[in-house]
Amino acid sequence: MKIIVDGMGGDEAPVHIVDGAVLAAKEFQEKNEPHRILITGPKDKIAGRIHHCHGDILLGKYIEIVHTDEWIEMHESPASALKNKVKSSMHIAMEMMKRGQADAFVSMGNTGAVMAVGSILGRIDGVARPTIGAFLPTQKGKTLILDVGVMVDCKPNHLLQFGLMGSIYMHAMMNIESPKVGLLSVGEEDNKGDELTKESNKLFREKKLFDFIGNVEGRDILKGTADVVVCDGFVGNVVLKFGESVAAFMKSRFRSVAKMSLTHKLMMLIAKPALVSVFKDMDYQEYGGVPLLGVNGVVIIGHGSSSPKALNKAIHVAKEMVEKKINEVIRQKIILS
Amino acid sequence: MKIIVDGMGGDEAPVHIVDGAVLAAKEFQEKNEPHRILITGPKDKIAGRIHHCHGDILLGKYIEIVHTDEWIEMHESPASALKNKVKSSMHIAMEMMKRGQADAFVSMGNTGAVMAVGSILGRIDGVARPTIGAFLPTQKGKTLILDVGVMVDCKPNHLLQFGLMGSIYMHAMMNIESPKVGLLSVGEEDNKGDELTKESNKLFREKKLFDFIGNVEGRDILKGTADVVVCDGFVGNVVLKFGESVAAFMKSRFRSVAKMSLTHKLMMLIAKPALVSVFKDMDYQEYGGVPLLGVNGVVIIGHGSSSPKALNKAIHVAKEMVEKKINEVIRQKIILS
Repeated sequence: MKIIVDGMGGDEAPVHIVDGAVLAAKEFQEKNEPHRILITGPKDKIAGRIHHCHGDILLGKYIEIVHTDEWIEMHESPASALKNKVKSSMHIAMEMMKRGQADAFVSMGNTGAVMAVGSILGRIDGVARPTIGAFLPTQKGKTLILDVGVMVDCKPNHLLQFGLMGSIYMHAMMNIESPKVGLLSVGEEDNKGDELTKESNKLFREKKLFDFIGNVEGRDILKGTADVVVCDGFVGNVVLKFGESVAAFMKSRFRSVAKMSLTHKLMMLIAKPALVSVFKDMDYQEYGGVPLLGVNGVVIIGHGSSSPKALNKAIHVAKEMVEKKINEVIRQKIILS
Repeated sequence: MKIIVDGMGGDEAPVHIVDGAVLAAKEFQEKNEPHRILITGPKDKIAGRIHHCHGDILLGKYIEIVHTDEWIEMHESPASALKNKVKSSMHIAMEMMKRGQADAFVSMGNTGAVMAVGSILGRIDGVARPTIGAFLPTQKGKTLILDVGVMVDCKPNHLLQFGLMGSIYMHAMMNIESPKVGLLSVGEEDNKGDELTKESNKLFREKKLFDFIGNVEGRDILKGTADVVVCDGFVGNVVLKFGESVAAFMKSRFRSVAKMSLTHKLMMLIAKPALVSVFKDMDYQEYGGVPLLGVNGVVIIGHGSSSPKALNKAIHVAKEMVEKKINEVIRQKIILS
């Protein structure tokens, strides 16, 4: 299998990217698995970092550099990047995917740009809109919430397909027999919500494409009531970013409480290792990335601040998605819907 | 001043309600302030609880019972309650407000029903839709997010008025010279968002009715970037309920970490008082309730699980809103807009 990695995508690219790719390649080498990681980006930079990681020996067999002069910055406009950076590390990777020269693509770069440039791959037959989800930790494990990719102004059929693709993903990748799918709304009753959710609720009930447990509310997400939470990209994005900010908020609270008295300060110091464990659970980086579902090809997107460990994890997720032929399952189920 | 309290609204009504009203009345008595608290509900129940609280001496001067046979249950449909429970503790209170027999109304009951029955009061001239907000704790203090009252499917002008009313409230009640108002969206740039937020952003910039700091994202809420966060009721409700669930989620994480090892368990035990302080900050009950803004009258709505202390606080918030003539300020500013 060939997994292509965007060498210049991410806050610490190419450093964290190459380091993570080398980690993954070493694992492939140890297990004697015939997989190859292709890294796109300026040859000298990528090669220099591979050398730094003592990875030269992997070159040619487990790692390959695909030279590109350009790359897309983290805060560049996706539309402009799609149009003007046609020789970027992201474009070249997607085009190689399109030509069948790679089986999966992993990027920790500009999420909007990955989605925009991902249009090169085209959509799986019958899919109206690709979607990107995110994992949130819950009291029971984790939940996939989608869309969070700013697919704003959705239609009921889009949400239906998000639910179906999310359900297929969670079944195959998380080994959940029949993933519970909830529709995010402002009340549990079927008739609660805005126009979009009320119509979507009806459609979900009518189509019976997955285990639809009905509407779920904001409070149900962290409880883990559903394995998949479906919403439009506006709400999903707000909830995701709010959720990501909780850890920072809690830390600031702990600091201000610790300031209050010496006793509290001491308590906090003693409890620190336990607190660190708790916050680690809330760190979405541990999940290694999320799939861009609905496009013709396996694409995993990770956070810009991903560590080498997170990139390594993302490469393994991509590999598993290919092995489990998830896009083929989506294709078949969408045709039947 | 006469403040009327819904004696039968709340999970622990009338117990917590009467206890809170007695607390407030005792404070008025101590300070020799000539305010009176009217409590609606079945006379025997209310009187029995007042007696239990040693409040009989307050009756007639600081507390008055307004007998009603009916009340609205916490999970009753607001529309049906509005139509069929016309003799409820909530209806009678609103009608007394309407007739000028009370200056402010406080309820810990069914929020949807308070909003529906609140229509009896009519709207302040020029207000298109009343709104209910919620306070969320932030790294800097607290933020008023509105609407969270399930005013779904809003128009730009509604959001504009929410921003204006929220700004007036925060200025008057929280002594913020020029409250910063943010529009909740999926990116900071003016052109990011769904149709509603993109149009609203333009309108906010054009009208200049308050200190508009531009779009804010989900992650900015807990940071305290804005004093007032404006959004439609669907998104606001999801964010509020998600936020309310964070404390329970964190507690479950702490418990599971504590289970991991004896050391962690000990750490957690030692740190418990500090943890309790942190979680207390996240308890919206401490804020005592939120105003229903835009109706012709001062209405404060609190959480169903409010403690007597929270009800007491809400009564004081209502009193302050009357004293500061906030509805008159809203009326004048809306006319000028």
